[in-house]
Amino acid sequence: RVDGDRLWQSLMDMAKIGPGVAGGNNRQTLTDEDAEGRALFKQWCDDAGLTMGVDKMGSMFMTRPGTDPDALPVYVGSHLDTQPTGGKYDGVLGVLSALELVRMLNDADIKTKHPICVVNWANEEGGRFSPPMLASGVFAGVHSLDYAYGRKDLEGKTYGEELKRIDWVGEEEVGARKMHAYFEYHIEQGPILEAEEKEIGVVTHCQGLWWLEFTLTGKEAHTGSTPMAMRVNAGLAMARIFEMVQEVTMAAQPNAVGGVGQVTFSPNSRNVLPGTVTFTVDIRTVDIEKLNGMRDAIKEKAAVICEELGVGCSVEQVGQFDPVTFDPTLVDRVRNAAIDLGYSHMDIVSGAGHDACWAAKVAPATMIMCPCVDGLSHNEAEDISKEWATAGADVLLQAVLETAEI
Amino acid sequence: RVDGDRLWQSLMDMAKIGPGVAGGNNRQTLTDEDAEGRALFKQWCDDAGLTMGVDKMGSMFMTRPGTDPDALPVYVGSHLDTQPTGGKYDGVLGVLSALELVRMLNDADIKTKHPICVVNWANEEGGRFSPPMLASGVFAGVHSLDYAYGRKDLEGKTYGEELKRIDWVGEEEVGARKMHAYFEYHIEQGPILEAEEKEIGVVTHCQGLWWLEFTLTGKEAHTGSTPMAMRVNAGLAMARIFEMVQEVTMAAQPNAVGGVGQVTFSPNSRNVLPGTVTFTVDIRTVDIEKLNGMRDAIKEKAAVICEELGVGCSVEQVGQFDPVTFDPTLVDRVRNAAIDLGYSHMDIVSGAGHDACWAAKVAPATMIMCPCVDGLSHNEAEDISKEWATAGADVLLQAVLETAEI
Ligand SMILES: NC(=O)NCCC(=O)O
Ligand SMILES: NC(=O)NCCC(=O)O
Repeated sequence: RVDGDRLWQSLMDMAKIGPGVAGGNNRQTLTDEDAEGRALFKQWCDDAGLTMGVDKMGSMFMTRPGTDPDALPVYVGSHLDTQPTGGKYDGVLGVLSALELVRMLNDADIKTKHPICVVNWANEEGGRFSPPMLASGVFAGVHSLDYAYGRKDLEGKTYGEELKRIDWVGEEEVGARKMHAYFEYHIEQGPILEAEEKEIGVVTHCQGLWWLEFTLTGKEAHTGSTPMAMRVNAGLAMARIFEMVQEVTMAAQPNAVGGVGQVTFSPNSRNVLPGTVTFTVDIRTVDIEKLNGMRDAIKEKAAVICEELGVGCSVEQVGQFDPVTFDPTLVDRVRNAAIDLGYSHMDIVSGAGHDACWAAKVAPATMIMCPCVDGLSHNEAEDISKEWATAGADVLLQAVLETAEI
Repeated sequence: RVDGDRLWQSLMDMAKIGPGVAGGNNRQTLTDEDAEGRALFKQWCDDAGLTMGVDKMGSMFMTRPGTDPDALPVYVGSHLDTQPTGGKYDGVLGVLSALELVRMLNDADIKTKHPICVVNWANEEGGRFSPPMLASGVFAGVHSLDYAYGRKDLEGKTYGEELKRIDWVGEEEVGARKMHAYFEYHIEQGPILEAEEKEIGVVTHCQGLWWLEFTLTGKEAHTGSTPMAMRVNAGLAMARIFEMVQEVTMAAQPNAVGGVGQVTFSPNSRNVLPGTVTFTVDIRTVDIEKLNGMRDAIKEKAAVICEELGVGCSVEQVGQFDPVTFDPTLVDRVRNAAIDLGYSHMDIVSGAGHDACWAAKVAPATMIMCPCVDGLSHNEAEDISKEWATAGADVLLQAVLETAEI
């Protein structure tokens, strides 16, 4: 079993870097704080005798050698970057549990046939440079390196420039590494495990996603002097589309979600009807037919709603990934580890996208989840208990050991 | 009749000060551009032989003497300040038509019994320092001077500080002046006159208004990993409230408007359901019973909508004015002037608030409106024709002359 106290201490030490304003963290990708976090992680890996490789996206691969020179490594990791107002555990728990697992093997002097490689994927969050899971996406061949280097933050700085500035451009071609397997341990970021009182989520699938960015064009006009019959009301069209997305999603139950997190009214003045309204509909489910059916229904119905109001409607697909089925053998190993270790557990679908979803394109992969208080994540108030953290790390250790072979 | 070319030339000269980015103006109240506009206006008034008075709010009163020393002045004006992306005519047309009227009387050597005072009210727009119609509101006793001085712009600068900075703090107590009558000529800022092909709007009333600022509290949560049944969806509650406001407003037809111009989602991230949604409902109608009935219905129904979704709902009244009935004698004079001069005209209700609405609290007051292209206003593309501008100024001249008595 892992040393839960040591794991917790490492989590708390990492959280000191890039503190947030409300108890969480602001350690966004490729910032000075990210560089500081990377340096601390590297120091810990050096102390644990790991050998570092860095790829051209800045992802860090810290390897503990195996006994068989021909055996491919088992990769275990997640990400150290955070949202601007992020929590202390999202991503970090996975990277530091992988490190803890290695420390444990060192302490117990356990050797494995396959090397074990602890990974810190660059820019998982996508808060600074969209899209999320950027480096693992390039690794899996989903994005080109050029595309990734050209992604811009709000100040217009590019990923390529900023990676160079913090001096973490590696030598390795992205995706050149071959994996025997990939494991990722992550907080759930949702309320299910806590509600069901389970310590371990055995992640069988990840939902697929569509992000549909709507731009509605109304007529910018005075709220006081424009009669109802003469309005071209993009705000009202937006309201009807929200309700329709809710209806389409409810009709797709069980196991489908749909909602809106981002809205912009322009000019956004109390007494001006908006000329332009933009918002992003986020729909997800694990069944690709259902997912695409929801997308088609939403686009069709939105066109009808806008037509009726005379509002212009354009839709751009700004995010997309297909549902993922994780490797059944690895999933079984995780489930069996939870059973062996006596932890309460349940099968669960990952609601959010993770680096594991891209890794699954190039290797057998799976995930383990631990509950988080009130389902809160992407929020400085994100919280987990030391016991939860430890339980998942124990399961990770056992499933990884079985895969890396003693 | 006025000199339409001269009026137009003055409009174009004033529009050179604080040019916008798209053909309009950015001459917001108490900025350097406002000071420059005031200086040009003062120069023109000096040239026309007017005597300046300035009150403690910075409103400018430029008087042409009358023949009867005991007769109160007839006030004629509007405002020279603009929205950040405002048009060239909103307000400016009224001030410069009043000046043109005086220039005309000077040219024709016509004396009036009552003095005529051309007014430039400070901060009509309220874009920089809310609320709108601030100086005329203090003049009418609706707001205190302290309240007005303390209003802050987005940078935290106060009205009092900025008025001092541009050196336009006058000596006069605000509201000390007594008015024989007040006339204001303004663009319609709506589409009715153009649609009805009328040159002159005879303004009989101004709608009353409520601005209800809603703050909805949902549960900030991941859009992917939060099941539908576990959401506390403030965005959905907002959508239902928008639709309900539309229904309440349609049920209050004819002659009522309701809509939303300003919305803020927080944290406004594509994959985070909003923790907080704020928006302002703007409802207006000319019948105070109906207006308050709409407000009550909206507040009640919103509470029910939020209750059903478990969303927290608080409502603050951030704007309010009662409907205004303009002085019937002055209204008749305007209508008769239009008939005499052969201009097409119709009775109209002002959809927007104007300084005339506050002036009506302390004097007989009325307004004249001219059409604007496509109803556009608070928009750099705001447009009128020279013919429209001239027609209204002619009507203003005749109605003012009748009131000031030759
Ligand atoms: N884990 C996570 O929040 N990933 C970001 C992409 C998503 O919204 O699923
Ligand atoms: N004329 C004008 O736009 N006034 C501002 C207040 C309002 O929205 O009516």
